[in-house]
Amino acid sequence: MKELVFIGLGLHNEKDISVNGIEEIKTADTVYAELFTSPMPNLSLVNIEKTIKRKIFVLSRKDLEDESGKTLLESAKRGKTVLLVPGDPLIATTHVALRIEAETLGVKTRVVHGASIISAVIGLSGLHNYKFGKSVTIPFNEEYGGISETPYDVVAQNKSVGLHTLCLLDIKAEEKRYMTIREGLKVLLEVEEERKQHIITSETLTVGIAKAGSKKPRVKAEFLKELLKYDFGGPPHSIIFPGKLHFMEAEALVVLAGAPEKVRETAR
Amino acid sequence: MKELVFIGLGLHNEKDISVNGIEEIKTADTVYAELFTSPMPNLSLVNIEKTIKRKIFVLSRKDLEDESGKTLLESAKRGKTVLLVPGDPLIATTHVALRIEAETLGVKTRVVHGASIISAVIGLSGLHNYKFGKSVTIPFNEEYGGISETPYDVVAQNKSVGLHTLCLLDIKAEEKRYMTIREGLKVLLEVEEERKQHIITSETLTVGIAKAGSKKPRVKAEFLKELLKYDFGGPPHSIIFPGKLHFMEAEALVVLAGAPEKVRETAR
Repeated sequence: MKELVFIGLGLHNEKDISVNGIEEIKTADTVYAELFTSPMPNLSLVNIEKTIKRKIFVLSRKDLEDESGKTLLESAKRGKTVLLVPGDPLIATTHVALRIEAETLGVKTRVVHGASIISAVIGLSGLHNYKFGKSVTIPFNEEYGGISETPYDVVAQNKSVGLHTLCLLDIKAEEKRYMTIREGLKVLLEVEEERKQHIITSETLTVGIAKAGSKKPRVKAEFLKELLKYDFGGPPHSIIFPGKLHFMEAEALVVLAGAPEKVRETAR
Repeated sequence: MKELVFIGLGLHNEKDISVNGIEEIKTADTVYAELFTSPMPNLSLVNIEKTIKRKIFVLSRKDLEDESGKTLLESAKRGKTVLLVPGDPLIATTHVALRIEAETLGVKTRVVHGASIISAVIGLSGLHNYKFGKSVTIPFNEEYGGISETPYDVVAQNKSVGLHTLCLLDIKAEEKRYMTIREGLKVLLEVEEERKQHIITSETLTVGIAKAGSKKPRVKAEFLKELLKYDFGGPPHSIIFPGKLHFMEAEALVVLAGAPEKVRETAR
């Protein structure tokens, strides 16, 4: 059967794929993977290859973006082709573009979902999902060509209506460079220094989350100046700026994320 | 080891659990499941029981909410206890409350993530994740005690700044009642009738998504009056109201969700 199946690998290691995902790979004619849209710290494709008893071909950003997935799509025109991707497929726009391209060429597409960094990080924070506003990615300065003020504006906009903000942090997986929580906070503090709107200051309650999906994720809520000193270990790192806290959210931050006890007093 | 492990079952059937999830269950002393926070249309716990060769005890909303998970927590004080939950754990506030309770009692907790309806539905729509504002659930009228205007307000607020809105639809899984896209739209049209702000009208571009996580999810973008006639099949159903469309998002709605071609003209 000629089709392209996007399969989510989940968050941390090669066992975060679903049982359905493994079964789909076993019946594929050709298996590709891309590992540049998100970090998967403990992934071993070799272990998946052993389970499925076939070779996995890794495609680069160049293959999938600059060359519009030519190799992948040619394969899907010949037989069942799967693309393994970190997290949940289609959250990365690269995958959506490939899917549009495939369907336009008459190739049927399907998705096997995996755990997503967005849902995982929101869940680990203990904050209520429906109180998150727009999310944003903090880019590396050299990627943006200066300091992007967009993340600061998004946090400000969400806070003005009491909403939380999830900040994902830039990655350049092919160079093994992952922005840390400390680096992300410093970018935001530079914008604060310039704008002086008191949106993100050393006294701002901030949640840092690292290694979501591993057996020992690090989740720490603290005032920003203290959080800058905290050792979060390896990637991926994310930051949440809470808006107005419900009392149960404050309790979650204190009990599950080690926030200072006085955070309880700010809730309602 | 005394601990409570929340394990996400994913979206559709018993094979949406991750390989890590299966391994964790196999080493548990006691296995519970709750099935009331989200629908999982094709889930067979019996098939999981065959794989893990042990009994799974199902806990009700009464067990976990009214009685604060007493049975579950007593078990976790004695040995490794897992709670299987639909979707990704901790997106439902019920799970966060249980986690706080457990940690307060000195019981260690962990999470094995699963595919989340939120991430899945956003991905299937082809819309860009970072352009979604606050999400909202449309409640059954009798649950709310009248018509809730909150969902309408959330869509209005997001649209005013160009953002998309994900509307989850109420479920009463224990009564096997799941709000349909048509029912959800009718609630919103009643508010429109009252408020006349022209936020949600028969001409509003709307995306309906059903059966996310199955092999044949239904994703349809249409003007609201047409969408009301569309047959989405079984649950879960969700609705997305797009804000301002990027040209690639419009292309995704046309190619992947069968939107009318003229939607392309509204993009930029």
